[in-house]
Amino acid sequence: MIAKRLKFGDTIGLISPASPEDPDKIKQGIEFLKSQGFKIKEGNHLYDRWGYLAGSDKDRAEDFMNMFSDKEVDMILCVRGGYGSMRILPLLDFKIIKHNPKILVGFSDITIFLNVIASKSGFITFHGPMGSSNLQDTETLKSFLSTLMNGYRPYKLLNPSNINLNCNIRGITEGKIVGGNLSLISATLGTPYEIDTEDNILFIEDVGEQPYAIDRMLTHLHLAGKLKKCHGFILGQFTDCSLSNYERSLTLNEIIKDRILSLNKPTLSNFMSGHDYPKLTLPIGAKARIDCYRGEINILEAVVI
Amino acid sequence: MIAKRLKFGDTIGLISPASPEDPDKIKQGIEFLKSQGFKIKEGNHLYDRWGYLAGSDKDRAEDFMNMFSDKEVDMILCVRGGYGSMRILPLLDFKIIKHNPKILVGFSDITIFLNVIASKSGFITFHGPMGSSNLQDTETLKSFLSTLMNGYRPYKLLNPSNINLNCNIRGITEGKIVGGNLSLISATLGTPYEIDTEDNILFIEDVGEQPYAIDRMLTHLHLAGKLKKCHGFILGQFTDCSLSNYERSLTLNEIIKDRILSLNKPTLSNFMSGHDYPKLTLPIGAKARIDCYRGEINILEAVVI
Repeated sequence: MIAKRLKFGDTIGLISPASPEDPDKIKQGIEFLKSQGFKIKEGNHLYDRWGYLAGSDKDRAEDFMNMFSDKEVDMILCVRGGYGSMRILPLLDFKIIKHNPKILVGFSDITIFLNVIASKSGFITFHGPMGSSNLQDTETLKSFLSTLMNGYRPYKLLNPSNINLNCNIRGITEGKIVGGNLSLISATLGTPYEIDTEDNILFIEDVGEQPYAIDRMLTHLHLAGKLKKCHGFILGQFTDCSLSNYERSLTLNEIIKDRILSLNKPTLSNFMSGHDYPKLTLPIGAKARIDCYRGEINILEAVVI
Repeated sequence: MIAKRLKFGDTIGLISPASPEDPDKIKQGIEFLKSQGFKIKEGNHLYDRWGYLAGSDKDRAEDFMNMFSDKEVDMILCVRGGYGSMRILPLLDFKIIKHNPKILVGFSDITIFLNVIASKSGFITFHGPMGSSNLQDTETLKSFLSTLMNGYRPYKLLNPSNINLNCNIRGITEGKIVGGNLSLISATLGTPYEIDTEDNILFIEDVGEQPYAIDRMLTHLHLAGKLKKCHGFILGQFTDCSLSNYERSLTLNEIIKDRILSLNKPTLSNFMSGHDYPKLTLPIGAKARIDCYRGEINILEAVVI
């Protein structure tokens, strides 16, 4: 099963499955998507708020499931991450989701859904921009539309021409792309929803974490056997994860070297997907080949039909 | 096997298995321990420093193992937590540790060792003060000495008389005490070193984590099945884990209610063990009965011999 490609005129379902977004930002996002030629269906609880959660778990899960069941909805776009996705995992019906494959897009806290659905429901999901404001960045929009509209055949995924995709460990390898936000990957280890990295290519990014915390999360993955099992790595942006006071800390580069590069698996870094701009759309669960001589990600299968 | 009790004149081995401590503080701690009537043996790498780590993994692990093997050393006291304990887990020999049971004391990042050793090496460890400065607090020292010197028979563990031990969910239950710092319990789930809560009483505390992060860690334990398996809870201090801006967040109390109290298992809170003072010494791996009518923790077995 595979989700059908996005077309102008399609209906995009908007949901807040994690933290609440500023209502004005949601409305601006809706206007923008309409101006691009899409119809919008709002989740019943899109604007709900319960502390740092966008409403109760039950309501967020209901919106999530409704969008998959609703035949009028062609694709599902999250408006914000933050925190809360993992709270609703036990309330989701992965069989219903499996029988209604649809494009699902988001990142950060949404990492949880992207990987669980790719794994349990068996179709490709998309690590990409949120529906509230991210799409108004030109390169971000270009990658989003190009992937979701034209990704019905293999394609090459490159950084924008002025940004290097670095080859840290040279080599060529293949596997499914899995991953996203490192904090959330770590926060689901040991649960029925944990990431499967075996024979896969692990993509990671994060924001606002101190170097020692990045170390702790990578060490968590290491002790869980998740790093040695994968075929290679794509490192995205690590935004605001450095400390100015070097004396007190190992640098982010030292940590990456110690925990990732020491494994000597093909590794790309500086891939533009994460909390910085532009945010390229990366298909989670898609077979890919990473070429760490040329700095290329080759998507080997159709990601939409 | 069980560690032998502490006696005045014994030799305390000091180690830095995680982050480095200020050398002046270590020296003050040593003088204080000597003034109390103990001899001190310093780990070879006690003062090492590699960024946020107290030296290389190999060297920290070597000090850790040496203290267990060294017949001159009667008990082992960590000087600081911070971060780094989990990095050396694969370098430890739990068989050697098992055959050399000794009192081991620390908290925070040291949580990792306390639980792994209680579980893999099968003797009781101690969630208690660090050797650098914590012991100079009167109640902390009193609990430390009393537990390690007199804990060869069952005893009652109470908060200091002016501090309530709250009964949040009433009831009486028994089990081994496991746990410590919530962040570290979460950071080892899904690894061979993860905590075993089955039929046990789970103790948790934390410091400097935002409410949503406490929620995320408790949800992690929940999804990993660790909360429903245990018999009851002891909640320690959650120091600096509240946000002033209520609008943006659920409160810590709301989170505890939602993730812990909703399970309806006997639960005590405000137990004085964690990042606040006084720091009572809690035996990890010891059989206990919590009485959540009277607000008492009854240690049912000798914790030293």
